[in-house]
Amino acid sequence: MLIIAERINATRKRIGAAFAARDAALIQNEARRQAEAGADYIDVNAALSPAAEHDLMIWAVETVRAATDKPLAIDSANPAVVRAGLARVAKGTAFLNSISGEQARLEAMLPLAVEFEAKLVAMAMDDSGMPTSTADRWRALEKIFAATDKAGIPRGRIFVDPLLRPVSTNPEQLPQVLAMMREIREKGGGAGTVVGLSNVSFGLPSRRHLNRTFLAIAAAAGLSAAIIDPLEPDIMATALAAACLTGQDEYCMNYIMAQRAGKL
Amino acid sequence: MLIIAERINATRKRIGAAFAARDAALIQNEARRQAEAGADYIDVNAALSPAAEHDLMIWAVETVRAATDKPLAIDSANPAVVRAGLARVAKGTAFLNSISGEQARLEAMLPLAVEFEAKLVAMAMDDSGMPTSTADRWRALEKIFAATDKAGIPRGRIFVDPLLRPVSTNPEQLPQVLAMMREIREKGGGAGTVVGLSNVSFGLPSRRHLNRTFLAIAAAAGLSAAIIDPLEPDIMATALAAACLTGQDEYCMNYIMAQRAGKL
Repeated sequence: MLIIAERINATRKRIGAAFAARDAALIQNEARRQAEAGADYIDVNAALSPAAEHDLMIWAVETVRAATDKPLAIDSANPAVVRAGLARVAKGTAFLNSISGEQARLEAMLPLAVEFEAKLVAMAMDDSGMPTSTADRWRALEKIFAATDKAGIPRGRIFVDPLLRPVSTNPEQLPQVLAMMREIREKGGGAGTVVGLSNVSFGLPSRRHLNRTFLAIAAAAGLSAAIIDPLEPDIMATALAAACLTGQDEYCMNYIMAQRAGKL
Repeated sequence: MLIIAERINATRKRIGAAFAARDAALIQNEARRQAEAGADYIDVNAALSPAAEHDLMIWAVETVRAATDKPLAIDSANPAVVRAGLARVAKGTAFLNSISGEQARLEAMLPLAVEFEAKLVAMAMDDSGMPTSTADRWRALEKIFAATDKAGIPRGRIFVDPLLRPVSTNPEQLPQVLAMMREIREKGGGAGTVVGLSNVSFGLPSRRHLNRTFLAIAAAAGLSAAIIDPLEPDIMATALAAACLTGQDEYCMNYIMAQRAGKL
């Protein structure tokens, strides 16, 4: 499972303050710690304010790149900000987080994914709003796939986000989200799936137990990438254990090597 | 999910020594700690040696009953030992651990399950040995169900053990075991499922991560009971989180209450 590390997000209070102060040392420390914990991609979200986001994305991308060789996920709803981020990393390395089936977003973002050969987080929603069924999700997805196919983007670069909702408010959505993971594995033409994991535990106490338990359940349903905080206790151990238990880690060698490296 | 707590097992070195010394304080401490951690049943296995097992089962059952009100799982392959244990607890409260489709074991154990109204752990194997497919497991199970139906034992008292094998040696068995959980939920006539959880991690390091991660995956596949060490870090938190995430804990109230009680 690909791990997209979520901590460098300017909408979080402590990180936002670091963005505002252009505190490169703090941001680079976050980047390094996430990379050492096992992140495959470092997410960068600079949305401190609409006016500042463009310049802060450029600053943050350059700041993080100076700290780690890990590829980045450029996280913004603003196409100009996404362009500014993608233009500052090696072509073909980054994630674009994210597109959706919303017409304006799709039209603005797809050319960037083509130009910079980016992997895509594709939210399974369209202009009719948040999905509540697998049918809703597939309707949005058909629209997205039609556009990405036309643009020549291979399915293997697309990671569908079925839009995980909190179990506290929408428990009925969890079986739908898990069904979507299985269905995309079967008939997504090679597309993967991704979730913003911590959404599942919003509004509940002791969230880390819910996050890692859902990660295990989702891995068994075929989840191929997760946006997580890799510093959360036991979350990386869960990702490694789940790979071992679901046939994604032959002879559990990655698990055994992680243990030998003192990471379990 | 029902939790059957496995620590009082004379085949374990430290516990075996306590059985040999008739160290009631140590056994009672184990019983209390497991009950406090959230066990629904306390398993008692007195198999220190064939010659001593009968008397030690009687001693252990009386010792544990003096420490906790939790019901017991009487764990032996010897029908006389099972009878000695079941005869010393209130009728209709205990688990009989275990029967199987092996003819001699089935014939000897079933009358005890009837007489003492015990719940049953039913291993999905017969005289042809360890199962390697769901077909093997169902063949053994059909034999068991034919006998339990004839004896008038309701399916709701039967918990099928699909015989979990170590992922280190039999990774191909895990999908089969999970499939069996789903199939028994669909067409087991009300029977539940149970696994000896720690089998999954045998031969690997850092076993607790594998145990709790598989518990989450199995809960999503419909597992209804687990034989575990409830003192293993985070295992009970995982069981509670899995219940919340799989629709077995409405509004996650048990989870929230456990957090308020300082158990998460």
